[in-house]
Amino acid sequence: MASNPACIFCRIVKREIPSRILFETEHCLAFLDVGPLSEGHTLVIPKYHAQFLHELPDAEMADLLPTAKKVAEAIGCKEYNVLQNNGRLAHQAVDHVHFHVIPKPNESEGLIMEWKQKDVSADRMDALRKAYLKL
Amino acid sequence: MASNPACIFCRIVKREIPSRILFETEHCLAFLDVGPLSEGHTLVIPKYHAQFLHELPDAEMADLLPTAKKVAEAIGCKEYNVLQNNGRLAHQAVDHVHFHVIPKPNESEGLIMEWKQKDVSADRMDALRKAYLKL
Repeated sequence: MASNPACIFCRIVKREIPSRILFETEHCLAFLDVGPLSEGHTLVIPKYHAQFLHELPDAEMADLLPTAKKVAEAIGCKEYNVLQNNGRLAHQAVDHVHFHVIPKPNESEGLIMEWKQKDVSADRMDALRKAYLKL
Repeated sequence: MASNPACIFCRIVKREIPSRILFETEHCLAFLDVGPLSEGHTLVIPKYHAQFLHELPDAEMADLLPTAKKVAEAIGCKEYNVLQNNGRLAHQAVDHVHFHVIPKPNESEGLIMEWKQKDVSADRMDALRKAYLKL
């Protein structure tokens, strides 16, 4: 399995660095985030080392969402965000795929977002779709 | 399969409402978001109707991340956020589970977040973990 000895999350998987583990499966690990945005903020990571989601083999993804769901149930939060960031600009701080499960107990805690919609015309949207699908 | 005739996403799945579809599998559908935060902003949804991630059966989750990965590859964005919101407070606008794949081309477009860490002591984190696991 892909592993990187310099990666802090690979070291957590190998128990070389301690963490507060909630769940573990064959392919993934869930542990409390040491820098939480709200109480219960948890990371769900694949054991396989990949920097970006698009680099992670499908088989290594299978446990991630069922485990995120178990985390949400264990934490007992009804409102929460599940977030996975790819790249520095997108706020990825550790170069190993990780899903944040972030309880949203009130307006001021948890994930705070600015939802700034972009004006894209219907024609441009049609053209984008065709370009993506190479039609 | 769970479906809700009043749900806009269930109606998109049934082709009762048009959308710009990128990919479809047995269990999920990916289509361009009509209110994009950046060009290429896509939604990946399970066909099964559930309001929250923790209400979605595991079997209905299987295609979601492999499809999100295909979307990222098709769009050709290197930096992007994958986001799934649960509840109004957490910015869920449609009550059917959906994963946003949001390209992050620059600081001012795409998902803009405020990362406000909460001060939670190590003792409190230990106590939370025990409470979640009912230890």
